[in-house]
Amino acid sequence: MTAIQRIDPGPILSEAVVHNGVAYLAGQVSTSGAREVGGQTREVLAAIDALLARVGSDKSRILRAQVFLADMADYNGMNAVWEQWVAPGQAPARATVQAALAKPQWKVEIVVTAAVDR
Amino acid sequence: MTAIQRIDPGPILSEAVVHNGVAYLAGQVSTSGAREVGGQTREVLAAIDALLARVGSDKSRILRAQVFLADMADYNGMNAVWEQWVAPGQAPARATVQAALAKPQWKVEIVVTAAVDR
Amino acid sequence: MTAIQRIDPGPILSEAVVHNGVAYLAGQVSTSGAREVGGQTREVLAAIDALLARVGSDKSRILRAQVFLADMADYNGMNAVWEQWVAPGQAPARATVQAALAKPQWKVEIVVTAAVDR
Repeated sequence: MTAIQRIDPGPILSEAVVHNGVAYLAGQVSTSGAREVGGQTREVLAAIDALLARVGSDKSRILRAQVFLADMADYNGMNAVWEQWVAPGQAPARATVQAALAKPQWKVEIVVTAAVDR
Repeated sequence: MTAIQRIDPGPILSEAVVHNGVAYLAGQVSTSGAREVGGQTREVLAAIDALLARVGSDKSRILRAQVFLADMADYNGMNAVWEQWVAPGQAPARATVQAALAKPQWKVEIVVTAAVDR
Repeated sequence: MTAIQRIDPGPILSEAVVHNGVAYLAGQVSTSGAREVGGQTREVLAAIDALLARVGSDKSRILRAQVFLADMADYNGMNAVWEQWVAPGQAPARATVQAALAKPQWKVEIVVTAAVDR
């Protein structure tokens, strides 16, 4: 049986689950009240950085990112922050679509899958 | 070559595909006509339980769940059933977004990735 | 440390990332201007075939496909092309939801995860 590691397991979700060298992160959203998509994206990516650090990974080892934007008009605003953040030469596979998120103030949610050192 | 196992392979999709210790389930939806989101969520989770059993897994080994709600107003209704169902201390990573589903009567679709004993 | 292989790494995304026997493809969209969903789906699936070939996989080893349709009214049009394309008896797990895509002319985007021979 392969071990499963959970980060911040709660009654509804865990913030990350690690299995067989892969970390599956929960969808990350803005947590500190930024209202513009740029600020929210920075918060989301900081949350991803922090979770990856806790599982022994980092942004250079992200395999896939699924980006959900509440309004596709925010695509360029999200992307500008994203492009500054990505590890050069090590960008993940990515898909970006529009979808309303769980709270109306949220403009961006990103779901990351990453490799973990074993 | 690593073996791939498929559950209920059809002309369009398989209900689950297992590879390298991970089960990838197809999006599960209501199958017996429940109209409220609570009843539909119960059906979806029962379908997931059944598929996980067929691949030698169970809800305590879910790595990630992607929840699609046709109407985000159903979030609490979905979540109440979800929280009762989750294996305590073993919740998966999760993301929930709003998206119209393939049939207008469907209110919730859940896509699960789970660990499988080897 | 498990090696990570990236296909066409760019400043924003890589078209595919391979890790531990699994290929994670970026969301594939129409690239040559087809306007109908059938033609766009053919282009998307051709792009997927090409990327899978580059990572040493093929459509018979797809584990999961996430289909995003800009308009669910295109479901049958997408599906007709999909069904002709799928490797018989080896269909992946699949989920299809409606979501607006990054460019208004795009009608379908498909995100594939596939097994890779090791």
